[in-house]
Amino acid sequence: MNLYPADIEAMAARIIAAFGARRLTLATAESCTGGLIVGALTEISGSSAVVDRGFVTYSNQAKIDLLGVGPETLERYGAVSRQTAMEMVEGALERSGCGVAVAVTGIAGPDGGTAEKPVGLVHLAARSRNGARLHREMRYGDISRSEIRLATVRTALEMLIEAAG
Amino acid sequence: MNLYPADIEAMAARIIAAFGARRLTLATAESCTGGLIVGALTEISGSSAVVDRGFVTYSNQAKIDLLGVGPETLERYGAVSRQTAMEMVEGALERSGCGVAVAVTGIAGPDGGTAEKPVGLVHLAARSRNGARLHREMRYGDISRSEIRLATVRTALEMLIEAAG
Repeated sequence: MNLYPADIEAMAARIIAAFGARRLTLATAESCTGGLIVGALTEISGSSAVVDRGFVTYSNQAKIDLLGVGPETLERYGAVSRQTAMEMVEGALERSGCGVAVAVTGIAGPDGGTAEKPVGLVHLAARSRNGARLHREMRYGDISRSEIRLATVRTALEMLIEAAG
Repeated sequence: MNLYPADIEAMAARIIAAFGARRLTLATAESCTGGLIVGALTEISGSSAVVDRGFVTYSNQAKIDLLGVGPETLERYGAVSRQTAMEMVEGALERSGCGVAVAVTGIAGPDGGTAEKPVGLVHLAARSRNGARLHREMRYGDISRSEIRLATVRTALEMLIEAAG
């Protein structure tokens, strides 16, 4: 029995194999996915050689405490913003010592959406020590809380591969 | 579409409702489950009022850095031990300011088991600010990596309810 859809499990297995072969470690910083990215990666046997840690920063205070996101960034741009995602991923990379990190923050719904920031809006960021800095703004639409979270996991895994180069 | 089995989703919903009604917040500290406990809780709409943060401490260094587990504890008793689980949960409670925390560390397999610490061995701990201190040693058996992780999620959710009292 597999918890995740087969395509996610396959992507996770590919990342663990590729990163492991290069001795690359990774960290995740998750808000709207609430641990599902690191949960997918650790489904794979042998992932402990690659996955170092995950920061699940669901509250704003957790983003500040664990990742060093600026309170003024949260105040000015909001938790769901490019700026917050970039500060989250920087904190995850610096505070873990890992080679690659990915961060996500979004509105999984069904509540909490606005005209400007609708349900399904997610900002993702990835960084690597070799200098890669990626950002994506996704608008998955109001496809259900669970589907928005899984879609975010898929994009985050793609960005880990891309950031590793 | 639901990611988790229906019984886990129902337990998570029950926790979010019960904790929310009492304005109780929670934190998780996860090793072998790799984020699946906090992932289950955050599947529930409205969970942001209850779930503050999750520490996914997959490596020993992450357990030391993020939760303050003693290097001598890891050395003497191992990462999969009652002592490590108790230090993990204490760190999660103290460093989050939450009302209740749960911590898990175990051997999800298929590799990594020994005669003394076989695949399926998991130590869980839960604490609350009202004084509850719980520990369980589970031996789920070699029922597959995915099933061991899900069984651990179930036990952890039960312990959150019990610790909240």
